[in-house]
Amino acid sequence: MAHLIGIDVGGTSIKAGLFSGDGKLLGVKSVPTGALDNAEEFAKVNAGLHELIESHNVDVADIVGVGLDVPGPVDSLGNVGMLANIKLDATAFSDAIKASFPGARLAFINDANAAALGEAWVGAGRGQTDFVMITLGTGVGGGIISGGRLIAGHVGAGGEIGHITVNPGETEHCGCGRRGCLEQYSSASGIVRLYKQECARLGEEPAELKGPSDSYTVFQRLAAGSAAAEIAINRMCEYLAIAMSQLSAVVDPAIFVIGGGVVGSFDVFKEQLGEKYRATTLLPTRCSMIVPAELGNEAGMYGSAYCAMQLL
Amino acid sequence: MAHLIGIDVGGTSIKAGLFSGDGKLLGVKSVPTGALDNAEEFAKVNAGLHELIESHNVDVADIVGVGLDVPGPVDSLGNVGMLANIKLDATAFSDAIKASFPGARLAFINDANAAALGEAWVGAGRGQTDFVMITLGTGVGGGIISGGRLIAGHVGAGGEIGHITVNPGETEHCGCGRRGCLEQYSSASGIVRLYKQECARLGEEPAELKGPSDSYTVFQRLAAGSAAAEIAINRMCEYLAIAMSQLSAVVDPAIFVIGGGVVGSFDVFKEQLGEKYRATTLLPTRCSMIVPAELGNEAGMYGSAYCAMQLL
Repeated sequence: MAHLIGIDVGGTSIKAGLFSGDGKLLGVKSVPTGALDNAEEFAKVNAGLHELIESHNVDVADIVGVGLDVPGPVDSLGNVGMLANIKLDATAFSDAIKASFPGARLAFINDANAAALGEAWVGAGRGQTDFVMITLGTGVGGGIISGGRLIAGHVGAGGEIGHITVNPGETEHCGCGRRGCLEQYSSASGIVRLYKQECARLGEEPAELKGPSDSYTVFQRLAAGSAAAEIAINRMCEYLAIAMSQLSAVVDPAIFVIGGGVVGSFDVFKEQLGEKYRATTLLPTRCSMIVPAELGNEAGMYGSAYCAMQLL
Repeated sequence: MAHLIGIDVGGTSIKAGLFSGDGKLLGVKSVPTGALDNAEEFAKVNAGLHELIESHNVDVADIVGVGLDVPGPVDSLGNVGMLANIKLDATAFSDAIKASFPGARLAFINDANAAALGEAWVGAGRGQTDFVMITLGTGVGGGIISGGRLIAGHVGAGGEIGHITVNPGETEHCGCGRRGCLEQYSSASGIVRLYKQECARLGEEPAELKGPSDSYTVFQRLAAGSAAAEIAINRMCEYLAIAMSQLSAVVDPAIFVIGGGVVGSFDVFKEQLGEKYRATTLLPTRCSMIVPAELGNEAGMYGSAYCAMQLL
């Protein structure tokens, strides 16, 4: 029976999921790796993949697709662009997996796009042909499904939602070198940045944070009545709503699926976000729904498997 | 031999083009009409269409598709939304044409999207699977082709480029009721508005204009050394570049096709626009080309015919 493997490719490990053809996750296997640019590391990954399928009594011949999501641009033809955060020889890695799974089609995909495809397959976007997924994590990622198909873009920059300009007057720089990107306000680290700014402005003692992306603590401070946290979350929602209204004027999705770590606090900000979106967007697009993602940090694994399946 | 008809539906007339299956425009026929909601007007249109095909010795049976572009939203299923500027009973009109051309598939499409499809078929977007058309006319329209397919959107608001917010600090309202839309700066009437503002601010005597959308005269003033015209055109380009950079972060096109009346002055502003775009957009998207449209005000006729053909 046809099965699929979806692989999250990270800087220090890969995480592989084994899927049935109808999208059921059968098992997961993590393999710690070094730089993915040599035969030794490729062999380690292949050994892990074989261990995964054997433990579920799946034959090599049953693996019809292997999808790999990477933290960087992948264009509409599946070509991997420059990866800033991981070392990967995409062609050699792909060849090594092909040699080990000769019956499988291989596909690379951007990690945020993979998450969107995963949600489209079996998650919050199930049955929707037009939706936008916005991943609020350390940064802000995105994936756009239009007419049932992913918009990868000419150089793989399709769905780079984190870099929609929402505040042209910003003086601080975004990681991309530009100013006023959504990511500067609505990512976990953006929320922390806004919170600290407001604490300083209001003379409020900032809470002890577990790191520069600890938005969870900011939401806890909000619940405890912190004025700085309230303003930070307000601004997070305000800028997110602006970006969503831009998206509606460009691709006009039926729903927005919000994912990433920040979505753990979705119930806290969903009403405010919805109100701000409806007040900002073009009249006919006000009915777009805003829902939380369903697959958590496994969405990318699902989506990369699905991406490989679409090649069949 | 298979032929197509593409129809521009306007408020006081329709303009129909007869096309060969490979996109050659064989003839054009305009028919003045009243409100398109009654049998008498439908009969007038049908009479005009029959006259058009007969004058080119084309049989009714050879007409395999009729496309109609309308100035308003059409969703991804071809449903016509609210039309502010024309009176049209889309279902009854469509039924009347079907009765007259029983072998033809009918399709409605938004006019700006039709222009993009037309350019994709035989114009400046020929051979491109990922491009954005921006129509700078009285307003700003747009059409997005991604992976070779038009993005109509869930409620037909896909490609509503004129309503991308480019200046959140704007105090004047756009026609859509919001503030800071691209249309307020980069349409023909936007250019005139900016020019008049700058004339007032600089104490410059404004040129006599032929109407509120006479951007041509503003470009003539620019050539004559007017400081107000220079600032107006600068701002037109600046805001257009911001919108284009937003588009690149969402759909990442290989090329931007600029159409509409303002494109008559493309040679005057193309360098400035290119520089501003490259300075504004995400690094990997800087290579997107910016080219003028090729089909002029016939693009919509071409595109609506092509849209009908895609249904075959």
